[in-house]
Amino acid sequence: MDTPWECEMKATFAALEDRHRLDGRIRRFVDEAVRFHGFPAPGVILGAYMIDLALEKLEAEPGERFFAVAETKKCLSDSIGILTGCTPGSSKFLLFNTGRLSLAIGRDDGSGIAKCVRAFVVPGRTEGYPALRAWYFNDTAFGAKNKLPQLLEEILGAGRSILSWERVEVPIPSKDDQWKPVICPGCGEMVPDYLLEDGLCKACGKGSCYTKHDS
Amino acid sequence: MDTPWECEMKATFAALEDRHRLDGRIRRFVDEAVRFHGFPAPGVILGAYMIDLALEKLEAEPGERFFAVAETKKCLSDSIGILTGCTPGSSKFLLFNTGRLSLAIGRDDGSGIAKCVRAFVVPGRTEGYPALRAWYFNDTAFGAKNKLPQLLEEILGAGRSILSWERVEVPIPSKDDQWKPVICPGCGEMVPDYLLEDGLCKACGKGSCYTKHDS
Repeated sequence: MDTPWECEMKATFAALEDRHRLDGRIRRFVDEAVRFHGFPAPGVILGAYMIDLALEKLEAEPGERFFAVAETKKCLSDSIGILTGCTPGSSKFLLFNTGRLSLAIGRDDGSGIAKCVRAFVVPGRTEGYPALRAWYFNDTAFGAKNKLPQLLEEILGAGRSILSWERVEVPIPSKDDQWKPVICPGCGEMVPDYLLEDGLCKACGKGSCYTKHDS
Repeated sequence: MDTPWECEMKATFAALEDRHRLDGRIRRFVDEAVRFHGFPAPGVILGAYMIDLALEKLEAEPGERFFAVAETKKCLSDSIGILTGCTPGSSKFLLFNTGRLSLAIGRDDGSGIAKCVRAFVVPGRTEGYPALRAWYFNDTAFGAKNKLPQLLEEILGAGRSILSWERVEVPIPSKDDQWKPVICPGCGEMVPDYLLEDGLCKACGKGSCYTKHDS
């Protein structure tokens, strides 16, 4: 259930989209990405703009299938699976966590190398958009949360103007299906051999993400 | 665009769902997860069963918000974002890649610790399901691709019977918003300081996923 603030931000964002006359494919992309992410987060909106740009430069046909690279684990990456079909759990997705606000989409022509268009934010082009600039440069003093309406307004106002693109090639990683099953002696579950640490799965060894089991 | 084989497998799976009288929430979950993933992959179907089980044990209310852990990067993980709203690009999702076929879903009660139900496959319970067992233990000699209809049939036939669950607690990782922006001298884009390697972003340094830039 959304908090009152979240409800307010969603309504604010929808009104901004109307005011900026966002329509056609970009409206659909932004709305689908925001719906999947659950909130009009700046990154997921930028991701929708990047995908729209990349698909245009690729001269993508409806229904075509792609390979995608996310350069960040953050909200921007949520736009990829829902808009391109390159879902994080599929072999059509690579997380290459440079931390740049960027993604790449391209075709696998059967050579094993995806010919991609990479879209990215050009730092200098954020000038004139103070909230967007503060968010991009993680200027916490700016108080991004309180200024989210201004930030959303600036993102829609800027649109593609803060982005650029280039062609890149990405060798598509092979599926890691060459593993042997091991039963972890700690939990008795099956784990691929290459993920064992000191003979145990990561949940039974040191550094588990779980603090307590009371089953 | 789906290949003829993919079209055939989708039709086969839909017919199997009808034959097994899959309905109610689990039908909706399986269909939504498969639609998002783009294909009736065994893992994403199992993921839907795990989420259905975990939400039942949590006595989840409609619209409740959760925190989720994926224990694999593979297709199983694609079920989480679309069915629970804990999308990979959000702070409600943790990838803890043990490689176990498992996921955990729980509530953040404000303590910073999510009280979760972890659902998982019990290896011994796959007996009696030869295709499922071969897939689970990565027995490539079995020829899983050719036997996908049998595997899908067995997954729907087995349903929850191959799963178990336990309660676990997961400290929710804090948002990594304490970073400083650095302009990478290679590409001129902004990168969080903690992701730089030898003063460059990962795309400009060694080990880039890109083989060629011709922009």
